[in-house]
Amino acid sequence: MLKTAHGQINTPVYMPVGTQGTVKAISTQELKDCSAEIILGNAYHLYLRPGLDIIKKAGGLHKFSGWDRPILTDSGGYQIFSLATLRKLSDEGAEFSSHIDGSKHFITPEKAIDIQQTLGSDIMMILDECVHYPAARDYVEQSLALTTRWAKRAREYFKSKGDEGQVTKGQLLFGIVQGSTYLDLRKKAVEDLVGIGFDGYAIGGVSVGEPEHLIQEIAAYTAPLLPENKARYLMGVGTPPDIIQAIASGIDMFDCVIPTRNGRNGQAFTWDGDIQLRNAEYKEDFRPIDETCECFACRNHTRAYIRHLFNTQEILGLRLVSLHNLHFYVKLIQLSRKAIKEDRFGGFKDEFLKRYNKPKEK
Amino acid sequence: MLKTAHGQINTPVYMPVGTQGTVKAISTQELKDCSAEIILGNAYHLYLRPGLDIIKKAGGLHKFSGWDRPILTDSGGYQIFSLATLRKLSDEGAEFSSHIDGSKHFITPEKAIDIQQTLGSDIMMILDECVHYPAARDYVEQSLALTTRWAKRAREYFKSKGDEGQVTKGQLLFGIVQGSTYLDLRKKAVEDLVGIGFDGYAIGGVSVGEPEHLIQEIAAYTAPLLPENKARYLMGVGTPPDIIQAIASGIDMFDCVIPTRNGRNGQAFTWDGDIQLRNAEYKEDFRPIDETCECFACRNHTRAYIRHLFNTQEILGLRLVSLHNLHFYVKLIQLSRKAIKEDRFGGFKDEFLKRYNKPKEK
Repeated sequence: MLKTAHGQINTPVYMPVGTQGTVKAISTQELKDCSAEIILGNAYHLYLRPGLDIIKKAGGLHKFSGWDRPILTDSGGYQIFSLATLRKLSDEGAEFSSHIDGSKHFITPEKAIDIQQTLGSDIMMILDECVHYPAARDYVEQSLALTTRWAKRAREYFKSKGDEGQVTKGQLLFGIVQGSTYLDLRKKAVEDLVGIGFDGYAIGGVSVGEPEHLIQEIAAYTAPLLPENKARYLMGVGTPPDIIQAIASGIDMFDCVIPTRNGRNGQAFTWDGDIQLRNAEYKEDFRPIDETCECFACRNHTRAYIRHLFNTQEILGLRLVSLHNLHFYVKLIQLSRKAIKEDRFGGFKDEFLKRYNKPKEK
Repeated sequence: MLKTAHGQINTPVYMPVGTQGTVKAISTQELKDCSAEIILGNAYHLYLRPGLDIIKKAGGLHKFSGWDRPILTDSGGYQIFSLATLRKLSDEGAEFSSHIDGSKHFITPEKAIDIQQTLGSDIMMILDECVHYPAARDYVEQSLALTTRWAKRAREYFKSKGDEGQVTKGQLLFGIVQGSTYLDLRKKAVEDLVGIGFDGYAIGGVSVGEPEHLIQEIAAYTAPLLPENKARYLMGVGTPPDIIQAIASGIDMFDCVIPTRNGRNGQAFTWDGDIQLRNAEYKEDFRPIDETCECFACRNHTRAYIRHLFNTQEILGLRLVSLHNLHFYVKLIQLSRKAIKEDRFGGFKDEFLKRYNKPKEK
């Protein structure tokens, strides 16, 4: 359970990704219909478009986007190191060129706080350097030292500002554990961040190109080092099995674009694994995506119809699969939560993985 | 009021266009939320994709698409003469190549009935030749004679088949009045079709390239010639003022892609005229599209937000404007219906046109 300015969040929780102030192809009502408790917004994208002036005048991101439940905003760290070009890092901050129009911008740990306070998110993330895989140990050590200095500055700046005049009072600030695949550096990062003190801790710098098993190794190693009474958030992960395994490692929060991004390409998740609805085998399959699912797509439409929609480039197709996948992710998390409460998560996990990974009959 | 196998329809009525078995970007629930009473499907498109086999196995178009209210299907006449290539007309029927894969097909007036009976639409349209503008009188005379022969064959074939074994019992069959811009030919077409006898009559071959005022002239001339106790349907028309004016001429039914097609480009309809939401002037406009509208978009989102969605190519933008425009069209028709019942349509029409066409303050 996590208390935010816009309401409590049950954990573990999956956060649909609303990069540009909308979860792609999905309405706020549909998010509520699938019991999404919190969504993610992206400071980098929103800072560039529509820009902070407009969001400030709208009264913050909640009002601008029409979403009244909690929002977590990423600081932009990940985007500066993945999307933006011509980055120049200094102790002061990160200079980068917009991926949209090439315009130059300079973000400091303090400015990242300012931006997220203008957005008025419930949970802010610190600015960090997100190192890609593979990275030399030397580089990671230096980078981590910078991220830690930035974390300290962010925390102090946030503390000094207080709630006065803020769109969202009682904002939370999360630290981000970096350290690439070097577990001892992950440990050091945890110690330094916990020393500074944050409202929650994310494990960042995963899902950045490393082999899949390393994500789980990093999560399994790092999560137990983090304070038990604070939320632990694994950034950008992952497939349904990834999520189930990370929950077993003690992770509380997830964000991932897979349900919507893959949904837009026709990939749907079911308890028996994922299926590609554009495939010819679904041409005359008049069953719903998932017989047990209660989402709008499964209650009203068949695989054959959705395949037809993809085949004819109809937007409703990607809407329906995105919607179903979000339902599936939220349901997966809800069932995990229930299993944890009832102290039978291990069995739930094994059963889920066995069924999900079972080869499909052809 | 029009009775169909899937329920009664109040007239005048606007039919959202669901060419390929879906109103573009809109769900069946959203269609119901905006009180759509009937939608249009397209035999040409559905015959090519997903094909009749699949729709037959699904149990008809209603079941295939998940829409349980009435459906009118166009025969494909218009598409054969606008989309398909390499057409070859004979007395027997129309040969054409698919606009998708070039495959050859041959449609007769009888086959058009068979197709629409497999689709199981509530209202079928006869196969006609849809002549484009401008067309020489000689050509139109010959074409009209063919359309009339086809109409007679369609009517007889439909009668001979009966309801036995049909997906939708009690299907209606509408004739289509052609004649291009030659009013005497329109008159002859009406006489011939009424002589054959149909469940309703459409005015086709409008909105095919002619100057706008001709659409209204043809409608105003033709509608009063048609039987008062049968539905009169003006095909493919039009803008909100077009519709209001055609109602004044006695038209009962409309279909038009403008609300959804223009909606996907950011054009929204309001009682004060249409607005282009991508324009910079809406950047900081935190009002809904229309203050008085009760659609989801207007209840939850601002012009500034929707502009941002278009600016960032987010699908939710075109969803919201399509949805709003459909609400607007249905509301326009509902208010017209009310005004007709209360015998004050003339005043309603003048007031609507005055406000709608008033130059906007800048």
